[in-house]
Amino acid sequence: MASLLRTTARMRLFSAHSIVRPTSRLPMPAFAAASSRHMASAAAAAAVPDAGEQPFFDDEPRGPIIKTEIPGPKSQEAIKRLTKVFDTRSLNMMADYTSSFGNYLADLDGNLLLDVYAQIASIPVGYNNPSLLLAASSPQMASSIINRPALGNFPSHDWADILETGILSVAPRGLNQVFTGQSGSDANELAYKAAFMWKRRQERGGADVDFTPEEMSSAMNNQAPGAPSLSILSFKSAFHGRLFGSLSTTRSKPIHKLDIPAFDWPQAPFPALKYPLEAHAEENAKEEQRCLDETERLITTFHHPPAAVVIEPIQSEGGDNHATPAFFRGLRALTRKHGILLIVDEVQTGVGATGRFWAHEHWGLDDAPDMVTFSKKAQTAGYYFGNPELRPNKPYRQFNTWMGDPARAILFRAIIKEVERLDLVRNTANTGEYLYAELERLAQQYPAEVKNLRGKGQGTFIAWDSPRRDEVLKKAKSVGINIGGSGERAVRLRPMLVFQRHHADILLDGLEKVFKS
Amino acid sequence: MASLLRTTARMRLFSAHSIVRPTSRLPMPAFAAASSRHMASAAAAAAVPDAGEQPFFDDEPRGPIIKTEIPGPKSQEAIKRLTKVFDTRSLNMMADYTSSFGNYLADLDGNLLLDVYAQIASIPVGYNNPSLLLAASSPQMASSIINRPALGNFPSHDWADILETGILSVAPRGLNQVFTGQSGSDANELAYKAAFMWKRRQERGGADVDFTPEEMSSAMNNQAPGAPSLSILSFKSAFHGRLFGSLSTTRSKPIHKLDIPAFDWPQAPFPALKYPLEAHAEENAKEEQRCLDETERLITTFHHPPAAVVIEPIQSEGGDNHATPAFFRGLRALTRKHGILLIVDEVQTGVGATGRFWAHEHWGLDDAPDMVTFSKKAQTAGYYFGNPELRPNKPYRQFNTWMGDPARAILFRAIIKEVERLDLVRNTANTGEYLYAELERLAQQYPAEVKNLRGKGQGTFIAWDSPRRDEVLKKAKSVGINIGGSGERAVRLRPMLVFQRHHADILLDGLEKVFKS
Repeated sequence: MASLLRTTARMRLFSAHSIVRPTSRLPMPAFAAASSRHMASAAAAAAVPDAGEQPFFDDEPRGPIIKTEIPGPKSQEAIKRLTKVFDTRSLNMMADYTSSFGNYLADLDGNLLLDVYAQIASIPVGYNNPSLLLAASSPQMASSIINRPALGNFPSHDWADILETGILSVAPRGLNQVFTGQSGSDANELAYKAAFMWKRRQERGGADVDFTPEEMSSAMNNQAPGAPSLSILSFKSAFHGRLFGSLSTTRSKPIHKLDIPAFDWPQAPFPALKYPLEAHAEENAKEEQRCLDETERLITTFHHPPAAVVIEPIQSEGGDNHATPAFFRGLRALTRKHGILLIVDEVQTGVGATGRFWAHEHWGLDDAPDMVTFSKKAQTAGYYFGNPELRPNKPYRQFNTWMGDPARAILFRAIIKEVERLDLVRNTANTGEYLYAELERLAQQYPAEVKNLRGKGQGTFIAWDSPRRDEVLKKAKSVGINIGGSGERAVRLRPMLVFQRHHADILLDGLEKVFKS
Repeated sequence: MASLLRTTARMRLFSAHSIVRPTSRLPMPAFAAASSRHMASAAAAAAVPDAGEQPFFDDEPRGPIIKTEIPGPKSQEAIKRLTKVFDTRSLNMMADYTSSFGNYLADLDGNLLLDVYAQIASIPVGYNNPSLLLAASSPQMASSIINRPALGNFPSHDWADILETGILSVAPRGLNQVFTGQSGSDANELAYKAAFMWKRRQERGGADVDFTPEEMSSAMNNQAPGAPSLSILSFKSAFHGRLFGSLSTTRSKPIHKLDIPAFDWPQAPFPALKYPLEAHAEENAKEEQRCLDETERLITTFHHPPAAVVIEPIQSEGGDNHATPAFFRGLRALTRKHGILLIVDEVQTGVGATGRFWAHEHWGLDDAPDMVTFSKKAQTAGYYFGNPELRPNKPYRQFNTWMGDPARAILFRAIIKEVERLDLVRNTANTGEYLYAELERLAQQYPAEVKNLRGKGQGTFIAWDSPRRDEVLKKAKSVGINIGGSGERAVRLRPMLVFQRHHADILLDGLEKVFKS
């Protein structure tokens, strides 16, 4: 803890872009210094607005440190102990968070990895971020931890303030209400429930029309009309969570769904585009139209009619599948045309990662989505909405004991302030532009290693297909980098918002080492 | 915050039962002092083991304070502001948690209520409990707040220790594993998923039998056999949460279920017993046998066969419905006989409220339940299990990004230590015994007000039916007491574990005032 406090005391309070110093004076990470990267990147640098940069954290390590195989002996011992009480078969690395800092993840054996996976895309502004530590050490945080309210019944007197100065201050354009939850799955299911209640209200003829006795009694028996035969339409390869309703809209991998009962809900094809997008504009447009046509057919003919369509701006767990803004605008038009709702699942794309605060800002919609769900980097969860009709007509219809967690809402507020203070959305856009250009070069140099590079103009939300993906991810650890995969063969980059050019250089050098091996 | 720190410094470190002082020297709450309660209770006192008692917190208020109507002018203003961004139609009271302490809940207008509802049964050891404040202010807590891990992939090096010294140290007998989640609904759905995977493994012939291609492809289409036609059997009036799977097992009220699609799953009748139980033993036994018979019929004939039965030890949201240990033992036998699992939902009954740490300890089972779910007073959620076969045969089948929250697990550990330090389960058993005896007397005195008193021997988990329930709840506020209801007409007491005899006296006096009015 001593080191954290020291860091806090030395916390920098200038904007990331207020000081520009020559690239040559950047603190060169030990690992990257000997490589050829900086010569290779000189040409690309001119295209990037912020060629010179100031590190966000004085105390951040200068590069990865690899002392042992991963897991090393101490980690192995700790894993052995944990295995007795916890399923460790999905364990990737036993972490030591007290020794992690900024973009670097530590383990018990003294290894320190540049982390471009970031707890499955959910660490926003670096490990042990000093500003977040201040918020987490505040009396307000302590009170919210130990006096957790049932928010729907007994909200705390500062709840309006916490919402207004935090979560709501980043609400997507056109959406001014929030319903708080606890995880991405939970956020989506709450949004689905809101959609079903809204749809039935339309069918019933408005908020004032009361439930019929038949609806009341059939609902208690899980039968229509009280428990209606409605559905949520999702897309092939989508991931929206793993609770029973959200899992019914998830179509990522069999292992996520096997043996779990599911609702008979429709799935539309997601466009299978060719990359780079700009080189295949015409055939991609055709493919997107085909998918929109099939979506419309399902909306109008599926035997359990959809109340809403749910979609990710970039299918993340499903393999980093992109579509163009035209596709999403088409989807918005379709949902309007057929009187159903559009739910945009920004659980993984939200909070800056694509170079906009919300990824759907890239689409140029005239007409906001009906709901936008969030979690992960927000460190809390829930959904935004704008239409007052998405508040059910009676209380206790959208309700649960906790209805979110003020502690996490306070943390999200601190995250938002940090994103603003360091201009991190712009940083992510700029770093992403640089990184993408360098990856294009690597793709040309190692065409067998980097296929279907994607995420241009999408901040650092970048991925490519790799014929030996799992081996690449494993080898990356040995050169000091923690990377994740998505889908069957994609390498996905999900760095934090404090990921800068000098981190990108370390990543690129590491990847080149792996590709050469 | 100053007052909290002062309290911490003066925190008492002796056991509740180490000092006995005469009842007459108890700090008499201002509100109760003028009443007749203490004479009336003199006779009952002899039956109670700990007639003299030491308050747990020196600084706890001595009684309620009522300064204004509730909501008062400041609260009304705050509610008006909150309503702009948050649905306040279910708001009961706008709370000021910084001024709340122990069993007393404060509002913005200077009112201070004895709280026997406790955030829908979810505050365990008092508002601003000094021991919890210490835990919430620790470096470990701050680190766990700001470095939230994806526990399945990157557990923290101290996760095994947090589990072993916390959550697992109170695991029900026979259950030595835990899977962590985030809410009661979430905990139940995770348990349901484990049950479905377990059941299919039995049907498939063991863990080594791989999924068929047909299972893999049908699962992706939400169809059997990959998404099997199995069910969870629950009981009429049950409440197990409000996500899509858990809501399908919830049968409390139409308002909880209307307009939400549900699985076609079976519900068995829950015994409709006559109270007091001991006076109607024979007819109650018949009623319970009827319900067991119908349960068995559903298990063996329902068109979507159950993989598990889920049941609350006391149906809480559904109206505080009790059954006898014999009924639960019968249910355990039935589930064993038919090769399905028994899930005990202790979300509301768990963590000491019934005078045992887990309510199902009252049943005298030889054979532990297969899973026990928890949340609320644990301030974290999840399910316990003992059978290694309830770990799925492959990783990533029971998985999500966060898989619980170490911050909340650290808090639960502090709660457990506080429960042990102050011997709070025994306190709750003793206070409950006293309170129940006094309520019996009130029931005789006001037979039109207190009907079907229930919860004898169940700690402070006490309820009764009231013909003018909502009026009673409202009037209770005016005499300084915050009480909740359950079902259609039950008044339910859900005080914290630090609720003592002198608090019970205030409650009893207040109730008498309400009954007289």
